[in-house]
Amino acid sequence: MSAEPGKRRPPVRAVTGPVLGRALRILEAFGPRHAALTLTDIARRSGLPLSTVHRLAGELIAWGALERDTAGRYTVGLRLWEVAALAPRGQGLRERALPYLEDLSQVTHENVQLAVREGAELVFVERIAGSRAVPVHTRVGGRFALSATGVGLVLLAYAPPELQQEVLGAAIRRFTPHTVTDPQLLARMLADVRANGFAVSDRQVTQDALSVAAPIRDPAGTVIAAVSLVVRYGSFAPQALSPLVRSSARAISRALASA
Amino acid sequence: MSAEPGKRRPPVRAVTGPVLGRALRILEAFGPRHAALTLTDIARRSGLPLSTVHRLAGELIAWGALERDTAGRYTVGLRLWEVAALAPRGQGLRERALPYLEDLSQVTHENVQLAVREGAELVFVERIAGSRAVPVHTRVGGRFALSATGVGLVLLAYAPPELQQEVLGAAIRRFTPHTVTDPQLLARMLADVRANGFAVSDRQVTQDALSVAAPIRDPAGTVIAAVSLVVRYGSFAPQALSPLVRSSARAISRALASA
Repeated sequence: MSAEPGKRRPPVRAVTGPVLGRALRILEAFGPRHAALTLTDIARRSGLPLSTVHRLAGELIAWGALERDTAGRYTVGLRLWEVAALAPRGQGLRERALPYLEDLSQVTHENVQLAVREGAELVFVERIAGSRAVPVHTRVGGRFALSATGVGLVLLAYAPPELQQEVLGAAIRRFTPHTVTDPQLLARMLADVRANGFAVSDRQVTQDALSVAAPIRDPAGTVIAAVSLVVRYGSFAPQALSPLVRSSARAISRALASA
Repeated sequence: MSAEPGKRRPPVRAVTGPVLGRALRILEAFGPRHAALTLTDIARRSGLPLSTVHRLAGELIAWGALERDTAGRYTVGLRLWEVAALAPRGQGLRERALPYLEDLSQVTHENVQLAVREGAELVFVERIAGSRAVPVHTRVGGRFALSATGVGLVLLAYAPPELQQEVLGAAIRRFTPHTVTDPQLLARMLADVRANGFAVSDRQVTQDALSVAAPIRDPAGTVIAAVSLVVRYGSFAPQALSPLVRSSARAISRALASA
């Protein structure tokens, strides 16, 4: 389920100035399966000349945005992680939500996930693997399609109408025979999510898993994140899980409001 | 215990090119108590002209390194957090260590901390607050002095000799009457840490807390992180906690080696 940022992410969205744009392309060269790179790797993955990569990587190292590992390869640096820990939709949300996610984990021993929407995809902000749960392969910081998972269906259901139309109008990726790829059926499912306040993804991502997700709202009522339980198909009825997930989502929304 | 990156961090360490250096100064303007800033705030905190801030913030927004909140203020963006989630010493370490940290938390209900060294300070990579534990005020991504906490004493004890001399040669900050500020006594404590394989910070940070910490090693045996339990002073003898913390540290080291 983990995505490869270097591949799936759109390229730099706006025309940035040449120097800053190139530095950001160096950061984009790193990915889950490319966490440690040589200068040559970075040049190839970013499309930048080796001399440019050498100079800018040196500046990024000096600041701490990159580091070198014991083998001399470049990695993302701790200082960038320190700054990024200030992202309200990343670490900020995660810190507020974590006690409730741990409660969900401890009372169910199932997989718990927390995600936010970034454009037409979702980003997992936290996951707690259940000790006796169905295996899931999400990664914190990893991306995934909105159209298949429980958290994705929630985030899509409450996304701006034009983004929903964009997702429904494009080819919808099939993961299993149960993945809903018919735009009209998916549109009805999204209306149900809004009516019921929760989403069910029934074997739409993997054949053995079912997830139930609910929306997390900011104080103004806007849906800003989604929380889900992912269980083995057949172990629980969705109706048994939805009150639990919904009450957790409401507790997290309340914790955000009191921040 | 949380630090203010904009204040405590050293300024940009090397002469970076003007554009990239300015963009990094914009990122440095954000801090735990300055997570949402106007352009004017950023200009004031970074020392950059408003026109420069306006232009570079626009580029950082376009890429996703910054975002705007509902009030129009600038915050650190989710995309920067996604890239930073690839930092081996940040999220990478945290993901590997988390199951063991949760075990420590669940068997003790005390505070658990995970930290790495960054220069002459430590950075907290994870913390789990104990449900019935003494309050601690660490923040994930926050910095702290090496010389007082349990995790700091471990990281300092195994730091390069020249860095130890730098810390012992400078004024050592006092937090409580129990803080060890005598360089010779601190040097002996560090030798004890290396001999015993764990560190005890006895009311050296706050008057009511004691912490016991142990080193986490990479496959080559180099100490790369430290884990600790922080308990109320008088509730546990350090000798009762050290085998537990040491065995957790060894389990995390083993998990890193099998990565």
